Amino acid sequence: MENFDFYSPTHFVFGQDREDECGELAKKYGATKVLVHYGSGSAVRSGLIDRVTRSLDNAGIAHTELGGVKPNPRDTLVYEGIDICKKESVDLIIAVGGGSVIDSSKAIAAGVCYEGDFWDFYSGKAVIKKALPVASILTIAAAGSEGSPSSVITKEEGMVKRGTGSDLIRPVFSILDPKLTCTLPAYQTACGATDIMAHVFERYFTNTPEVEITDRLCEAVLLTMIKEVPRVIAQPDNYQARANIMWAGTVAHNDIVGVGRSQDWNSHGIEHELSGLYDCAHGAGLAVVMPAWMEFVYKHNVMRFAQMATRVFGCSMDFEDPQRTAVEGIKAFRRFLHSIGMPINFKELGAKPEDIPTLADNMKINGVRKGFVDLSRDDVCSILTIAANAEL
Amino acid sequence: MENFDFYSPTHFVFGQDREDECGELAKKYGATKVLVHYGSGSAVRSGLIDRVTRSLDNAGIAHTELGGVKPNPRDTLVYEGIDICKKESVDLIIAVGGGSVIDSSKAIAAGVCYEGDFWDFYSGKAVIKKALPVASILTIAAAGSEGSPSSVITKEEGMVKRGTGSDLIRPVFSILDPKLTCTLPAYQTACGATDIMAHVFERYFTNTPEVEITDRLCEAVLLTMIKEVPRVIAQPDNYQARANIMWAGTVAHNDIVGVGRSQDWNSHGIEHELSGLYDCAHGAGLAVVMPAWMEFVYKHNVMRFAQMATRVFGCSMDFEDPQRTAVEGIKAFRRFLHSIGMPINFKELGAKPEDIPTLADNMKINGVRKGFVDLSRDDVCSILTIAANAEL
Repeated sequence: MENFDFYSPTHFVFGQDREDECGELAKKYGATKVLVHYGSGSAVRSGLIDRVTRSLDNAGIAHTELGGVKPNPRDTLVYEGIDICKKESVDLIIAVGGGSVIDSSKAIAAGVCYEGDFWDFYSGKAVIKKALPVASILTIAAAGSEGSPSSVITKEEGMVKRGTGSDLIRPVFSILDPKLTCTLPAYQTACGATDIMAHVFERYFTNTPEVEITDRLCEAVLLTMIKEVPRVIAQPDNYQARANIMWAGTVAHNDIVGVGRSQDWNSHGIEHELSGLYDCAHGAGLAVVMPAWMEFVYKHNVMRFAQMATRVFGCSMDFEDPQRTAVEGIKAFRRFLHSIGMPINFKELGAKPEDIPTLADNMKINGVRKGFVDLSRDDVCSILTIAANAEL
Repeated sequence: MENFDFYSPTHFVFGQDREDECGELAKKYGATKVLVHYGSGSAVRSGLIDRVTRSLDNAGIAHTELGGVKPNPRDTLVYEGIDICKKESVDLIIAVGGGSVIDSSKAIAAGVCYEGDFWDFYSGKAVIKKALPVASILTIAAAGSEGSPSSVITKEEGMVKRGTGSDLIRPVFSILDPKLTCTLPAYQTACGATDIMAHVFERYFTNTPEVEITDRLCEAVLLTMIKEVPRVIAQPDNYQARANIMWAGTVAHNDIVGVGRSQDWNSHGIEHELSGLYDCAHGAGLAVVMPAWMEFVYKHNVMRFAQMATRVFGCSMDFEDPQRTAVEGIKAFRRFLHSIGMPINFKELGAKPEDIPTLADNMKINGVRKGFVDLSRDDVCSILTIAANAEL
């Protein structure tokens, strides 16, 4: 195990109807003027935004609104949000939505307290030194942004997707009401679930030896997803299954399952180019990329993949041929993704094999990109080629 | 899953030699005058206290010291600590030691900010409303107090052991250096490990249905302990095994494995009377009580015990007779405890069967004590009788 710091100060407020407490929570955490930030019309149509503003009114907290966050949230709306916060002296941003809305809120929060262009944090030119507090009311279990220090924004010009991170943009509180996710369509639910599982796998495939506790915690989240996701696909309003998935999504990404070990974020990196270019759902892109990445790298540590196969997917260990077990585990993962309605190759995703060189170029790899296995641009092309042609 | 709040704001600083950062951390968290609180001479003899005070000196932070915390920490030393903190205007208490030292520090921290007798928080007469910040440098993986809101103190007069809890006494930072635990004797190591496993089991045996995520997280910690504890008993200076156990101990008790479900703390409750009366190690008492408690209650939910047996202890599920599997799991737990050198009955613990009525009376149960199975005074006697006579 490597030395590490673990710091997850977010107050998680979990359960049915707890969004009605957001006014009191905002007051508890010192807010006087809140920006309620949200996405498409669904949060309005469902009456959620009304409930949030009513709760703020009841607590005597002023508020203003900014909707319109799109999946793969854009820099253009971030600039708008920064202007509003400055003009209206906002002192807390409440994100009502999923990862995109929370990430957009984090970008605004950091941008408000910065003289320069907020994109500097995403292009690597600057580090976040101060930010407005952010809170969230989560409506989809997926990105884990409700408990994470990270944010990913897409620059409209050229659709460049980049991320940043800082403990200063971790939400001060996050309200997780599984009921709010019960109306999500199956496809979006499955995309979110895939993202959650990917967050765990990116931590699971490590070169750090002897990390049993985090291995087991990773497996705990994955086993939960394997049990619960098919239940919500079959019964979308199954509150208990939704609840288990929602909490699993937070645990998957506040880094409790990843501390003290090297991690690999190359599947996420490759996927960002897919959703950047095609504007597809991040989870759908991951479903296509991640098993392909596994097939490309598994020989680097066959026993780790055999461990995943047996402990997570219940495959029988072939002690005479562990490689067979490793491959069986990857196949089981792809079958699982297919069973919950995810695409498993380029055709099902709507991606084009002829774009592979462009996708690889867009990653701007100089030499190699570090990870469980370091990847060159050509390796990325190989992975995307496996992804393009994958079958069950 | 039930509604819950999860709040674990402690900054965990994990890894070799990280105690040398305590001065800078104290400064970061606003301290100007620190009380260094510790236990027996070993923290002094090993040079640890010197390292801590040197780090504080280097950071320009004034400090004073109070040693002498005993296992089952006493109220008398808490009063002394409160006096020192008031007299010296201490603004941060750093506990250097295990659960006893941290619990004592938490009691002092709350007592300093309270007009009345600090024992009011433990006797249930008052609730903690303010406390000095507490930090910890952990030297034994066991109590989980480094990441928990709880504290247990023993009143010297009559040896009454009582607990309290508040988010206000959660450590602001906790330094966890596995190296510091490498010199612990096997018996103390095993006592700590038993306490860690008990913290998980007290959460595992729940009446809340459909809590897969926390079930799996509980199992993750238990499986880690089953792998790693025998390794450190055989090789006390195995850093990697010590590291896995140390982080498992924190995860076991900051409630990440227990949220959203009813819990059962009756084994801890019964054990507190044993260590109160005999001044035995808490973990040793738990090793005797907990399997006995399991034998007494398992028929309440045979399938939950069968789940533990198969998922945690690798027992083969007897689908024709799940009860057999349930019992096999409990036996496997007791065998495990015995294998790491823990007592499994009264004789091995140094307890006397004739004290059973006194032990039960000391719990002062009016009617029943709530839990997975509600326990009457007579039930406690039955559990203690099983514990008294247990065999492998």
